Amino acid sequence: MKKIRIGIVGYGNLGKGVELALRQNPDMELVCVLTRRDPARLNLATPGVRVLRMEDAPAMTQEVDVMILCGGSATDLPEQGPQMARLFNTVDSFDTHAKIPQYFAAVDAAAREAGRLSVISVGWDPGLFSLYRLLGGAVLPEGRDYTFWGRGVSQGHSDAIRRIDGVKDAKQYTVPVPEAVEAVRAGEMPELTTRQKHTRECFVVLKEGADAARVEREIKEMPNYFADYDTTVHFVSQEELDRDHAGLPHGGFVIRSGRTGEGGRNGQVMECALKLDSNPEFTSSVLVACARAVYKLALENATGARTILDIPPVYLSPLTGAQLRETLL
Amino acid sequence: MKKIRIGIVGYGNLGKGVELALRQNPDMELVCVLTRRDPARLNLATPGVRVLRMEDAPAMTQEVDVMILCGGSATDLPEQGPQMARLFNTVDSFDTHAKIPQYFAAVDAAAREAGRLSVISVGWDPGLFSLYRLLGGAVLPEGRDYTFWGRGVSQGHSDAIRRIDGVKDAKQYTVPVPEAVEAVRAGEMPELTTRQKHTRECFVVLKEGADAARVEREIKEMPNYFADYDTTVHFVSQEELDRDHAGLPHGGFVIRSGRTGEGGRNGQVMECALKLDSNPEFTSSVLVACARAVYKLALENATGARTILDIPPVYLSPLTGAQLRETLL
Repeated sequence: MKKIRIGIVGYGNLGKGVELALRQNPDMELVCVLTRRDPARLNLATPGVRVLRMEDAPAMTQEVDVMILCGGSATDLPEQGPQMARLFNTVDSFDTHAKIPQYFAAVDAAAREAGRLSVISVGWDPGLFSLYRLLGGAVLPEGRDYTFWGRGVSQGHSDAIRRIDGVKDAKQYTVPVPEAVEAVRAGEMPELTTRQKHTRECFVVLKEGADAARVEREIKEMPNYFADYDTTVHFVSQEELDRDHAGLPHGGFVIRSGRTGEGGRNGQVMECALKLDSNPEFTSSVLVACARAVYKLALENATGARTILDIPPVYLSPLTGAQLRETLL
Repeated sequence: MKKIRIGIVGYGNLGKGVELALRQNPDMELVCVLTRRDPARLNLATPGVRVLRMEDAPAMTQEVDVMILCGGSATDLPEQGPQMARLFNTVDSFDTHAKIPQYFAAVDAAAREAGRLSVISVGWDPGLFSLYRLLGGAVLPEGRDYTFWGRGVSQGHSDAIRRIDGVKDAKQYTVPVPEAVEAVRAGEMPELTTRQKHTRECFVVLKEGADAARVEREIKEMPNYFADYDTTVHFVSQEELDRDHAGLPHGGFVIRSGRTGEGGRNGQVMECALKLDSNPEFTSSVLVACARAVYKLALENATGARTILDIPPVYLSPLTGAQLRETLL
């Protein structure tokens, strides 16, 4: 059987995760990686893969069925998304929630003009969590949505701490408040403030001679990132940080709490949870499943931009509809 | 805005649940109920709804956009499914897992011939749980699926107990084994036997003079239903049963435990859970959301049979793709 030919744009954590995820999917193969770095310096784990510069993308249009864009949402994807959508069917994990409509429009226009298909904003949130929220709202229209993240490492918050004067290194964990989660699970539908939903726990390595009290204050008072939360700061050695906080675990839950029946007498709670040892590898795995869907939808001449909410789930699976009805329905 | 016109076939627990669920969905309206009983004896909660006999179905083809079939899987749906699919777009909750391929084929042929669309086997299992299993397998190909049901009332098992000589009334709860659930959640991927996954708890009212020891033995030794499980039997009075066990709560979890990365070093756990005060009302709510999808897909001239695995999720929601991208993606 012909395999789905995949390309990767950007070889960071996410790109490496895609490379590893593809090995678990025998109906797909990695054919090329595009990088901004010197191609000769990339050490791929997979033999026989071409490593090329970004500028070589147009030469690959006949070789790649779906290009998986693994750049960041801040600066890479706003540029690469529309650009690659003109050349390839694409999947990406654009995750700046507020800018999704604008990004969707840009990719949609590019893909339509080129007769290509792009699925944007895939991963777990946005992505699977978005799908869970849609299902919850559609099935239980009288209800409330709750999304909790963690316990897990937030790279954005870790970076924010590292930018403080006197900080050598740092990791920040986002932690859901257990009492809030329990109240929601029990169907109580509480109103929760930002502070009541999550706490923030920071592990910080100071530079020599830095003022710990000042650093702690600067973290706790940082607007947007920490000021609205109860934050704990632990000062640790670099050895401790490297030993105990090297991974990128994450996770969270989407809970829909609703009521049905005469006078809304019956409580109904839907919960979807993730517990991930590796956040980037899981996101990569979702990207790869969506690349399969893009391939199949493109064969049916679908063009333009889509999200995971538009994809018939059967397209994500390597199994046929008949196999799925027989084995897992 | 024109509302989606819904009909109900069969006015039992599920049909009543659909009637109540429709009140929570302002884009739909109930126009008729078809029943095998005397229409004059049905007391609907909604004014202005026509109540008709099954035989009157052909007269309603122009009045109903989607017919929701609320009969049972054992005898009603195998007959009504294909029959109604010749006249209407339909949704049903056919749930005899082993017979789904055969039922799908019969409904598909009928619906195709009539140029109609049918979504079969909708509810929570089959239904949402099937979708969760598909997502788990597609995202984490190297992993294992676990489905636990309960704690909740199994009507089939309750009926089986009531058929035993000397039993006046009974309720049976299916209960997941906490240690098994915890092991799976921890990513241990255990091999679990039937007995290790669930226990069964029975509340039984005896007829006067019945031999409790014999009834208990007959329950515990009943093949398929109880013999493969650890079963507890409590004898209670009718008053106690009516007071403490009147509801139809249910629920369960689908857990996908997988591994990713170099040598599968990272554990990734996806879990979706339901905790339902009313099993039939929740199933009804899923049926109603799927009826919306059937309506939208039929407008695009889709015909034949589908399952929830074939439906682009956006069709389940009353919101547009643009609204969903802006508010919940």
